[in-house]
Amino acid sequence: MSKIDPQAIQNGDRLALSRALTVIENDDPQSLEIQADLFPHTGQSHIVGVTGAPGTGKSTLVNQLVKAFRQNKSETKPPKVAVIAVDPTSPFTGGALLGDRIRMADLSGDKGVFIRSMASRGALGGLAHNTAAFATILDAAGFDMIVIETVGAGQAEVDVAQLAHTVVVVEAPGMGDDIQSIKAGILEIADILVVNKADRPGADNTARTLKVMLDMAQNSSNLPAGKHGTSNSDHLFQDIYIKQETWKPPVHTITATEGKGIAGLAADIQAHRAYLQDTGVWQIKEAHRLRRDLDALIRDKLLQQWQQALDQEQFEGVLQDVIERKYSPIEAANLLVHDKTK
Amino acid sequence: MSKIDPQAIQNGDRLALSRALTVIENDDPQSLEIQADLFPHTGQSHIVGVTGAPGTGKSTLVNQLVKAFRQNKSETKPPKVAVIAVDPTSPFTGGALLGDRIRMADLSGDKGVFIRSMASRGALGGLAHNTAAFATILDAAGFDMIVIETVGAGQAEVDVAQLAHTVVVVEAPGMGDDIQSIKAGILEIADILVVNKADRPGADNTARTLKVMLDMAQNSSNLPAGKHGTSNSDHLFQDIYIKQETWKPPVHTITATEGKGIAGLAADIQAHRAYLQDTGVWQIKEAHRLRRDLDALIRDKLLQQWQQALDQEQFEGVLQDVIERKYSPIEAANLLVHDKTK
Repeated sequence: MSKIDPQAIQNGDRLALSRALTVIENDDPQSLEIQADLFPHTGQSHIVGVTGAPGTGKSTLVNQLVKAFRQNKSETKPPKVAVIAVDPTSPFTGGALLGDRIRMADLSGDKGVFIRSMASRGALGGLAHNTAAFATILDAAGFDMIVIETVGAGQAEVDVAQLAHTVVVVEAPGMGDDIQSIKAGILEIADILVVNKADRPGADNTARTLKVMLDMAQNSSNLPAGKHGTSNSDHLFQDIYIKQETWKPPVHTITATEGKGIAGLAADIQAHRAYLQDTGVWQIKEAHRLRRDLDALIRDKLLQQWQQALDQEQFEGVLQDVIERKYSPIEAANLLVHDKTK
Repeated sequence: MSKIDPQAIQNGDRLALSRALTVIENDDPQSLEIQADLFPHTGQSHIVGVTGAPGTGKSTLVNQLVKAFRQNKSETKPPKVAVIAVDPTSPFTGGALLGDRIRMADLSGDKGVFIRSMASRGALGGLAHNTAAFATILDAAGFDMIVIETVGAGQAEVDVAQLAHTVVVVEAPGMGDDIQSIKAGILEIADILVVNKADRPGADNTARTLKVMLDMAQNSSNLPAGKHGTSNSDHLFQDIYIKQETWKPPVHTITATEGKGIAGLAADIQAHRAYLQDTGVWQIKEAHRLRRDLDALIRDKLLQQWQQALDQEQFEGVLQDVIERKYSPIEAANLLVHDKTK
């Protein structure tokens, strides 16, 4: 692929932007260079994560939300909004592209909106890394808001929570008997809760349950009980929670298909941004995120150096011994990595 | 905590077993030692992952499945079965413990069954690591089958896929409009597919869609298209898929609450085990898993060594420069990790 001009991305060139994102998705050698070039021009975007289980209507919600931000008459200049839709699609479905086209039809013609799907290809990882890289590029490209839409409970939500300034968790009424257990985890990452599909039976009940659990969480002094509290990043993560105790996540009931409740949600997203900036939590989140990025890059670099110096034959021999149960993996690691501190 | 005797765990001492699992959950210093002691006695268990979105009825299904294995009259000695239930519960709900009690009531008194919940506490990670460690202990404790039940799409499913010999993916009819995109990712990890809640409308339709997609996947020669194909483990992971092309995932429609279809599912899980062993894929999966374990341990050890040698003040200074956008994280990593290969 020919060289991409970082300046063109900053100037709002859509083609250059799209190409840069493709370079990241493909793990092209240019990827790191573009990120390094654009990094000094980042730090302005409000990153909003929208997450929730399949079937909660996140895509429709995000679509409506973007329209609401763009049509907000109270601001002289509406924010430029980028959407990263992380869909667990597979190479052979073409689902991501189809999704783009459907969304584009609704928001097409608006130069202040940019939508891009990212195939997650679950088995191969790298999702969190690519999402962060996308955010860097879009930030430098001048988008005031970056909405990241992810499917699924679990790790994807956690990754979004660590990247985003504001996390919107979407629920739908009657998602089954696992719902109680799901919500507990969600309370730890949600800045704003949405019960979508509010026209369905049980919506009020779901919203009520969420509110009760929020009250319980606010009154619980040991939230969050840090388990792996040894690394720096975990400590920082706790700091964020502590500082955020003064923000009580609001619960919105919304019918996204009809646009009902969207304006209120959009207003609360803006309110959360203001809250972060007024309290200094914005800067703490920023520092936390960059520390995690740096940490991950250092790990990769250390491993790379070690692999370059490695005797591949010795490694395979030790692995074979592990497979034959002569050593445990822990003993094997001790054998292979020489202790330089002694 | 007082010293745990690994021999007691191998002898079937329930208390010692429970204590060992707690030691792992708490990241107690004994954890690594117990795993190293027990590792030589592992490699016999059939690890079965059961995964799917919230509300698909996984817990009920697993419960019924365990009963079916225990009551199978065709075998002279039914397999000893352990269940690891990974629920995204939070410290303040006590959900995991409650779940244990409800399940235990149904399977209580059966000495050949062991059930343990694991709190996932999403934000703090370590889930994949702990699940693997649990499996090591339970394997050495003589369980013929270890069933790992996880909630959620995304990373949790991938982690289970990499640990388990057999992955059962559970769907339910009418989980919403995201279902198309979800399934594509699922096909890459599922050895057996289940449409649970088959008494609900749409079950046949869901099963039919899954079968069509499976046919498409089988006919697609570029499955899986490796994206991050640079590390050793990714290459190995691809090998597994290639070797498994001769196994076509069956699709079961089941009503777990009534036990309908459970016997057929249990039989296919056994059939998949036989398939893995007959084709040698079992050994490849095993080697792949141990290589990943070893890789992760080496990474941790390298980072540990680096941190011990690190000038903390320098690190914080460089991080501050990154926060002020003087360096990009990539440039900072290059600064902090000296290139020893030059």
